[in-house]
Amino acid sequence: MTGIPPAPAVDLTKLTADRTARLRDALAEAPFDAVVLTTPESILYATGYRSVAGALFRAHRMAAVVTAGDCWLVCPAADTAPAVDGGLPADRMVPFGRFYFESAEPTPLTSAADRHPDLYAALETAIKAAGTGLRYGVEGLAAEPALAAAAAGATVVDATGWSGQVRGVKLPGEVELLRYAAVLAEAGVRAALEIAEEGVTEQALAEAVAATMVAGGGEPRFVVATTGPRSALADAHPTGRSWKPGELARFDVGCLYAGYWSDIGRTAVLGDPDARQAGHYAAILAGLDEQLAMTRPGVAAAEVFDVAVRTVEREGIVPYRRQHCGHGIGLAVYEPPIVSPGVVTALEPGMTFCFETPYYNLGWGGMMVEDTLVVTGEGVDLFTRSPRELPVVAV
Amino acid sequence: MTGIPPAPAVDLTKLTADRTARLRDALAEAPFDAVVLTTPESILYATGYRSVAGALFRAHRMAAVVTAGDCWLVCPAADTAPAVDGGLPADRMVPFGRFYFESAEPTPLTSAADRHPDLYAALETAIKAAGTGLRYGVEGLAAEPALAAAAAGATVVDATGWSGQVRGVKLPGEVELLRYAAVLAEAGVRAALEIAEEGVTEQALAEAVAATMVAGGGEPRFVVATTGPRSALADAHPTGRSWKPGELARFDVGCLYAGYWSDIGRTAVLGDPDARQAGHYAAILAGLDEQLAMTRPGVAAAEVFDVAVRTVEREGIVPYRRQHCGHGIGLAVYEPPIVSPGVVTALEPGMTFCFETPYYNLGWGGMMVEDTLVVTGEGVDLFTRSPRELPVVAV
Repeated sequence: MTGIPPAPAVDLTKLTADRTARLRDALAEAPFDAVVLTTPESILYATGYRSVAGALFRAHRMAAVVTAGDCWLVCPAADTAPAVDGGLPADRMVPFGRFYFESAEPTPLTSAADRHPDLYAALETAIKAAGTGLRYGVEGLAAEPALAAAAAGATVVDATGWSGQVRGVKLPGEVELLRYAAVLAEAGVRAALEIAEEGVTEQALAEAVAATMVAGGGEPRFVVATTGPRSALADAHPTGRSWKPGELARFDVGCLYAGYWSDIGRTAVLGDPDARQAGHYAAILAGLDEQLAMTRPGVAAAEVFDVAVRTVEREGIVPYRRQHCGHGIGLAVYEPPIVSPGVVTALEPGMTFCFETPYYNLGWGGMMVEDTLVVTGEGVDLFTRSPRELPVVAV
Repeated sequence: MTGIPPAPAVDLTKLTADRTARLRDALAEAPFDAVVLTTPESILYATGYRSVAGALFRAHRMAAVVTAGDCWLVCPAADTAPAVDGGLPADRMVPFGRFYFESAEPTPLTSAADRHPDLYAALETAIKAAGTGLRYGVEGLAAEPALAAAAAGATVVDATGWSGQVRGVKLPGEVELLRYAAVLAEAGVRAALEIAEEGVTEQALAEAVAATMVAGGGEPRFVVATTGPRSALADAHPTGRSWKPGELARFDVGCLYAGYWSDIGRTAVLGDPDARQAGHYAAILAGLDEQLAMTRPGVAAAEVFDVAVRTVEREGIVPYRRQHCGHGIGLAVYEPPIVSPGVVTALEPGMTFCFETPYYNLGWGGMMVEDTLVVTGEGVDLFTRSPRELPVVAV
């Protein structure tokens, strides 16, 4: 398959060590001594462990208890062996539930089953090991860790905003993984436009996107490829609908690479655009370009939202109603800060964002450009490289 | 790409109508007048609507309020237009939150934003419309619907088991979609073994699986392709590890097709198996074969578990410790009944299962065969068609 970008040379073991160091540095400044991370993304950040089951089952629960110098992974018994394979110490696994690993000699992993009945009981053990007299930050104020820490006599503080801040400023290795995930998604859209012709189905376009992501080592996670009036539906699955001359096609696609997300948007037209298509596209692109132009450290997320809406309206789409015009991206597809009204968070170097100015007009069509970038000392470093003008597919 | 099975000719619009009819028939016999479905799978079952965002965001919430003759979809405003595009009436959308669709003329969809602040408030409206004097079944006893129904003066009953029973016995169209998802996953493993040779990486094997799923219109969702000692890790992501002569490779892979899951397992060896590999494989396969042989309507799920464990131990793996040896599969990858101790649920024609007898021995390796089937009037109709003997990849 052509057009696959070269994979980044990121040492994932070193990256995990770097993330852990960043987390520990932040912990030293935090209003608590230890933190209980409860989202799969923060647990991956802290430990390097990405659970297969965690992405499949809504009921799957884990926690990481992190102190200044140590870390315990509280997880279903089935997660222990792959976590240890990934580099975590076997004696820092605190398993719950029933799953059986065998081995030639008994080990902590072969007796992981039924050590604790549930997450709560395992957390009690982990918190006892980490220290009962500590102040604990709990991400998401998830019930079990908060209760288990409180039961152990610890002080409990909400650490949700804190973990978002720690993860929000990316390390260089994270930036490279996010850049690759973005260019891979972009290559997917390019591949779709290469096979595009009159009559191509949304499903065939989506398959071209997903096949490119897979060929580059990515895991496709959402592939919105919609044509004609369906391009106005925001997030919708592709169907067998055929692309017809004069119609828009809108792509909003993302994949995972080493746990990091992409989320990019592109629009194309089959045959020459009419005046309204060209005009509206120029308006949304101007909005995005103004976002990029004003982005630098110290600017508030809400200001980036305001400039997008103001510009799109000035360029001719009135009203331009949006709840957000972008979002942070990293180990989660949406991370704080969200680029929306009232978000006063100041941009910092190392923050990674998707900026977007989508427009959804039912009956007519939808269009968007969504780009991914990292904030630098002076402005932005844009990950996506496709030409910005409206791609025209020959009829 | 070769080896892609032909896609099934299932009319998805008719299938949605058939599922709705089945749900309504079951409702007529239920100890409640209306049901509030709260899982994405049951909502898809009842409405045909599969939310893109619902699969991406843990915090995404929806509900379907279903009465004998009507149905309301309670959903984020962004989900309204794609749901209506999929065939639901615009006046049966009860949106919450903020998202903007435009159109030439105002419609219920262009004013979906901010109609209700949250799921709870939207449910109050839906339940008022459906009837406040009714008895409501609530799936998962999710807090908001239970509270909203109770606040409206309705009687509230747990409908979790009920919805599992309704969805458990599949319609013919569902069986065909599940069969296709399974043979697509199986074709993926076959493609991986075709490119396999000494030194192939786990990631390359996984890419061959995922590429085949994509080429057949599936959405890869988990691709466990692990070699050597890593094959013992149960669910683990593939790495750059190379497959070496004498080692096992274990595949446990699944994709989505039209919302239906696959989950199949296969094991291979690079070069001729040694006596222990051959013997253990014969034992786990015998366990699976005995499961298939004893399956018929009226048999309890726990009996199918027992025969698997008893057979694998009799054939030489002692102890053979497992928490389950299979599970229902459908719009969720694990559905009741689970094939585990104490599950007295009797098998019925139309129930679809994955049966599996995996064995994970740390340091040595792991092996499994996992097959998917539908229970028939006489026994089983097996979806997977690969040869059952241990595949040997030439060194």
